[in-house]
Amino acid sequence: MAAAAPPPPPSPAPEAPNDVPQGSTPRGHPLFARIRLAHPTDVPHIHKLIHQMAVFERLSDQCIATEASLSSTLFTSPPFQSFTIFVLEVSHTPFVEHLQYNNPAYPPITKVVNLDLPINDPDRDLFRSNGGVLGGDACVAGFVLFFPNYSTFLAKPGFYIEDLFVRECYRRKGLGKMLLSAVAKQAVKMGSGGFAGSLVMLLMLMLMPSSSSSLGNFHTFFVGFRIQEMK
Amino acid sequence: MAAAAPPPPPSPAPEAPNDVPQGSTPRGHPLFARIRLAHPTDVPHIHKLIHQMAVFERLSDQCIATEASLSSTLFTSPPFQSFTIFVLEVSHTPFVEHLQYNNPAYPPITKVVNLDLPINDPDRDLFRSNGGVLGGDACVAGFVLFFPNYSTFLAKPGFYIEDLFVRECYRRKGLGKMLLSAVAKQAVKMGSGGFAGSLVMLLMLMLMPSSSSSLGNFHTFFVGFRIQEMK
Repeated sequence: MAAAAPPPPPSPAPEAPNDVPQGSTPRGHPLFARIRLAHPTDVPHIHKLIHQMAVFERLSDQCIATEASLSSTLFTSPPFQSFTIFVLEVSHTPFVEHLQYNNPAYPPITKVVNLDLPINDPDRDLFRSNGGVLGGDACVAGFVLFFPNYSTFLAKPGFYIEDLFVRECYRRKGLGKMLLSAVAKQAVKMGSGGFAGSLVMLLMLMLMPSSSSSLGNFHTFFVGFRIQEMK
Repeated sequence: MAAAAPPPPPSPAPEAPNDVPQGSTPRGHPLFARIRLAHPTDVPHIHKLIHQMAVFERLSDQCIATEASLSSTLFTSPPFQSFTIFVLEVSHTPFVEHLQYNNPAYPPITKVVNLDLPINDPDRDLFRSNGGVLGGDACVAGFVLFFPNYSTFLAKPGFYIEDLFVRECYRRKGLGKMLLSAVAKQAVKMGSGGFAGSLVMLLMLMLMPSSSSSLGNFHTFFVGFRIQEMK
């Protein structure tokens, strides 16, 4: 079978409008953000996000994930017992609840981010949640993949974040932090349930500067985070 | 409750005997090595190994694991579904089989390493397998802790090795490689069973030079391994 063509690269984020006179900048554009467990119907969006992440990391040649291979491997274990994905959605209007996304293992969490300017998302239709069939304005803006780990020095289980990605036009809005926080809160929640007393998260993210003018500099580097919740 | 005192640091490995004349060096000292799933009765040895690893990594102040905390957290999931420990044992005589260690999820694997000189293990009694109650000469020489991970770029699950440690006097005998290989083979085995087609292991180990004269040099560094089994 011929390999499927990779999804299109991300459209460049448009420049912020510069014809808005100072002093009259509209304020209070609400952006509704929701984090929920990934669902098999999210695979086409997760696939595109992974390929955008590969472009971002300049590792496109190493990215061979397909929708079929993701579908057959991503949902083999109950949430949190093995690798797990949270999907980040955003919407200009409040989210419409839908049973499909109300997994009892993780009720979705929502937050309203007040922006100075509305976001122009050139790929909104491409990332419309569930293909738009559930109605509403929501689209997928990012994801985080994590799995249980264990610190031998602390004798405590925790979560290890393998990938975290937010689409370019939604960056610098606190949404990546919201994804991190959701994983941390889940670790604490599992800890408070007696799973492990107190939990530790050991996170390692690969970051790159947004500028491509990194000649002579490292363009990838690792950063470790340790979030410890002591009870 | 007062914190339990950490286990004693490792005894320095004795120098190799230098009074053996060249040409008369005895050859063919067999060392029997076995890798098996950790059992709750191994916790005292795992505890000591973790603290020796902390000494090796100069992170003793961060190592607060106790036998009690390890016992309550290490065996909460079936093998390979979450974090899993393989224990490495060595013996001067062939291993005595024991039902306790014959976990159907992972039949132990054994190997004979032929050494030029016998190993003088100053901590043999401290690490005697199961306190010696099962008879035999076996003692615990190392361990590896790993857990399932997932490569989004390849859409494949695999194993991530968090810790690998071999006691000082047993290093440079191929036993660390044997532990690595055991995890790789288990990944391949799970892949051939239809779990994930082909599997990938992404390993990250923290290494230190054996010499302490690292002034002016990095004394810790990370090395990544990627073992890919394509079918």
